[in-house]
Amino acid sequence: MTVKEIDLNSDVGESFGAWTMGADEALMPYLTSASIACGWHGGDPQVMRRTVKLARTHNVRVGAHPGYPDLLGFGRRPMQLSSREARDYLLYQIGALYAFARAEGVRLQHVKPHGALYHDAARDRSLSQGIVKAIVDVDPALILIGPPESELMNAGQEAGLRVAQEGFGDRTYNEDGSPVSRLAPGALITDPDAVADQVLLMVEGKVRTITGRIIPIRVDTVCLHGDTAGSPAIARRVRERLALAGVKTIPLEELLVDQIS
Amino acid sequence: MTVKEIDLNSDVGESFGAWTMGADEALMPYLTSASIACGWHGGDPQVMRRTVKLARTHNVRVGAHPGYPDLLGFGRRPMQLSSREARDYLLYQIGALYAFARAEGVRLQHVKPHGALYHDAARDRSLSQGIVKAIVDVDPALILIGPPESELMNAGQEAGLRVAQEGFGDRTYNEDGSPVSRLAPGALITDPDAVADQVLLMVEGKVRTITGRIIPIRVDTVCLHGDTAGSPAIARRVRERLALAGVKTIPLEELLVDQIS
Amino acid sequence: MTVKEIDLNSDVGESFGAWTMGADEALMPYLTSASIACGWHGGDPQVMRRTVKLARTHNVRVGAHPGYPDLLGFGRRPMQLSSREARDYLLYQIGALYAFARAEGVRLQHVKPHGALYHDAARDRSLSQGIVKAIVDVDPALILIGPPESELMNAGQEAGLRVAQEGFGDRTYNEDGSPVSRLAPGALITDPDAVADQVLLMVEGKVRTITGRIIPIRVDTVCLHGDTAGSPAIARRVRERLALAGVKTIPLEELLVDQIS
Amino acid sequence: MTVKEIDLNSDVGESFGAWTMGADEALMPYLTSASIACGWHGGDPQVMRRTVKLARTHNVRVGAHPGYPDLLGFGRRPMQLSSREARDYLLYQIGALYAFARAEGVRLQHVKPHGALYHDAARDRSLSQGIVKAIVDVDPALILIGPPESELMNAGQEAGLRVAQEGFGDRTYNEDGSPVSRLAPGALITDPDAVADQVLLMVEGKVRTITGRIIPIRVDTVCLHGDTAGSPAIARRVRERLALAGVKTIPLEELLVDQIS
Repeated sequence: MTVKEIDLNSDVGESFGAWTMGADEALMPYLTSASIACGWHGGDPQVMRRTVKLARTHNVRVGAHPGYPDLLGFGRRPMQLSSREARDYLLYQIGALYAFARAEGVRLQHVKPHGALYHDAARDRSLSQGIVKAIVDVDPALILIGPPESELMNAGQEAGLRVAQEGFGDRTYNEDGSPVSRLAPGALITDPDAVADQVLLMVEGKVRTITGRIIPIRVDTVCLHGDTAGSPAIARRVRERLALAGVKTIPLEELLVDQIS
Repeated sequence: MTVKEIDLNSDVGESFGAWTMGADEALMPYLTSASIACGWHGGDPQVMRRTVKLARTHNVRVGAHPGYPDLLGFGRRPMQLSSREARDYLLYQIGALYAFARAEGVRLQHVKPHGALYHDAARDRSLSQGIVKAIVDVDPALILIGPPESELMNAGQEAGLRVAQEGFGDRTYNEDGSPVSRLAPGALITDPDAVADQVLLMVEGKVRTITGRIIPIRVDTVCLHGDTAGSPAIARRVRERLALAGVKTIPLEELLVDQIS
Repeated sequence: MTVKEIDLNSDVGESFGAWTMGADEALMPYLTSASIACGWHGGDPQVMRRTVKLARTHNVRVGAHPGYPDLLGFGRRPMQLSSREARDYLLYQIGALYAFARAEGVRLQHVKPHGALYHDAARDRSLSQGIVKAIVDVDPALILIGPPESELMNAGQEAGLRVAQEGFGDRTYNEDGSPVSRLAPGALITDPDAVADQVLLMVEGKVRTITGRIIPIRVDTVCLHGDTAGSPAIARRVRERLALAGVKTIPLEELLVDQIS
Repeated sequence: MTVKEIDLNSDVGESFGAWTMGADEALMPYLTSASIACGWHGGDPQVMRRTVKLARTHNVRVGAHPGYPDLLGFGRRPMQLSSREARDYLLYQIGALYAFARAEGVRLQHVKPHGALYHDAARDRSLSQGIVKAIVDVDPALILIGPPESELMNAGQEAGLRVAQEGFGDRTYNEDGSPVSRLAPGALITDPDAVADQVLLMVEGKVRTITGRIIPIRVDTVCLHGDTAGSPAIARRVRERLALAGVKTIPLEELLVDQIS
């Protein structure tokens, strides 16, 4: 019998200067991996150091969460970058976070593009190749997190990267396996037990669509968004329900090792 | 008999987006070390990669040239940062350049603060300590370049860093051994042979002040500014005159090794 | 018998992009004047429009609250600008807000520099002259708000501007009539009635210093900070206590007219 | 017999901080209208003032040249903005330039979107409506410059704005009347007489396509790009050839008046 296991990640370190975002301190204890903003869509050098420290305190693995050069739009607006621009912009951001990880004595585990960059890359082969090259530039041992069955995952695998497919515990899904747009009604799941239900289903390789159908989805890591009001309470409930169901929560790099062995 | 030797450095990679600055391609062949802007006062990810490549092509050692967060003012305006802010801002910038060096297969040799950060640090112990901590965070093997006899050099030495004192080949000097303000008349030396004369004098441990006196100055590296019209011609003349005088031009890290042995 | 009157202002519109700051909607009903950030230290075009609309809804007069070009530091860090830089940077910001006021059918009443710019200008004649020239450039009918007895007030008066001296209702004061540094213990007054006591004392032309002495201070407008947790509750209490004491709260431009007549 | 007339405009004021772009001083004497960058894709407050002054000196009418919030990409990369974002971003930029015009005693004549914003608006009705609303917000007397037969021109006319159709003197044209992409070979015309030929043809309501066909095009203003090496020489030759051909060069606002009468 296989032991079920899952990685729980969240996007953190998205405060900027005098502005606070998210509830990183309350959320961190429930995560196994943390994707840390790198200063382009959110985050700044002081926030980056603070967040790396916070993750280390809770033994949470850290990864880079690079975004478009769009602080004003929080990296959520599609932009048209060339593959080379994407590569260099990502290398810059990952390199910066790499330095904070090194300074605080931890290794980077993964890279997960942010916002519109994540969604654009899902469908754009050339953009994805730029992202992948940046990762290879810094450290080919880094895991690439992205949407299941996407151009981003394909590009990562072609380059020999370890890739991890991500599901969203607190977002509803379309029939084609993509999350419902954040702007559409019913896109967000806010009831802690409903999120836990979805995470448990994802562990089984399934997700329920917005019309009620159950479709297959392979997910290595589940993202719990940190910028909603009740996110720490949701994360706590998810951890409790996973424990009750006998599902282990482990960092992505351990999970991928287990998959191979 | 000791062989005389000197490092020739220049600040490069200061173009940004659609804007060009300097004549990096024409200047690079005459340098032994290059200080590359990191995107905060100038430079951007694409310029950083291009400049690292260019330096590698000419076998020029690369270093980080971090500045204040002031793109609009090109990092030339004093700002008041705490020691912690300085540390984290520098770590961010050095980390980003570190990644480009790694991607292009070269090592970072040094860190040299830019503009107002350089000059403020010369007199500010707390600011200098922040800068030094950032270097230790990334790699304690990095050489710190700064003004002779400054708080920055003191802070570097106290932390156990290798430090290199810098002279300006194309700037006139005050009686106290500091360069004449860039805004004052006569601050810049633009005649190639006059610059070469000054570099040769610096190799001998001396500099002529604006009033004509010869004062002692210990210099490991001489900076030739790259943003003036005739800078490549000046650099070429300096190299010729150094060769004629039997002075070796070698990268900073080799020069510091020679000094120890 | 003179009717006592005072203007109550607050710094608002300091959210930026995806980040929220302050409690503008809860605070606005208690103000007579609002100083709106212009996008350089905080605020953005969408926040500017929303804030101008909110002020208009509550019949609160609007002014520009320009700052240093330092989004990362929220304009709170001293920078060294020339008088010409200050003039052009301020003109840019005031012009931008002017357009939003025009679009929403209201007039700008005043200009109040933000953060470190405000404090630096208090002591710097040249910087103050740059600020004043920007106001004259846009509209010499604009009122300049600044610290009592400061270089900024002097520069405004010399240029023929109407000036308004500002007191802080929620900050303690030094013996010299300046507010205690925000970083010092006891700098902030958070008890609503203590703030109201101070505002009432200011209406009488006095303030109690941190050592307990009563010193004279002439104040036309009292600032209630909007970025603290209980600021709307404080503002409400101040309004109640002013009403009980028979002090009228009126917009600055009406108050200055009353002073003349 | 109708007197032929045309407006010659150029995009100017695109320097930023320490970086220079274009040859504004050499080009300005040959223009009748100048479109001035507003600090988002290029330009800064000091450049804006200097450029408004320069235009005034040569009796050249000034307009705003707002762009996407993308300094790093010089506003040349498509971004996805909502209609409201576009409106507020444009209002901000136009308002800022408006203030400099006012300060220097000139009126704004027109608004011409920059780069990717211009091209995106040509096909995007909602984006165009945002742009048009910003103009109405500031001053409905402003003329909107855009591509012939575009959604931008449509939106302007529907809102009651005066619109001016623009041709490019130094760009080749596709069969559908659009300029050949700047990235394609042969996109730019650099021979002064070839540019003059094209401008003269445009005055006649025609343009030659890249395949050699003559197609109709109605153009009120011809843009001469200022960021190419020989742009002042091209502009001078165009002026000479227009004079020889008896075509008057007059500012857009006079030209539109003549068209009505």
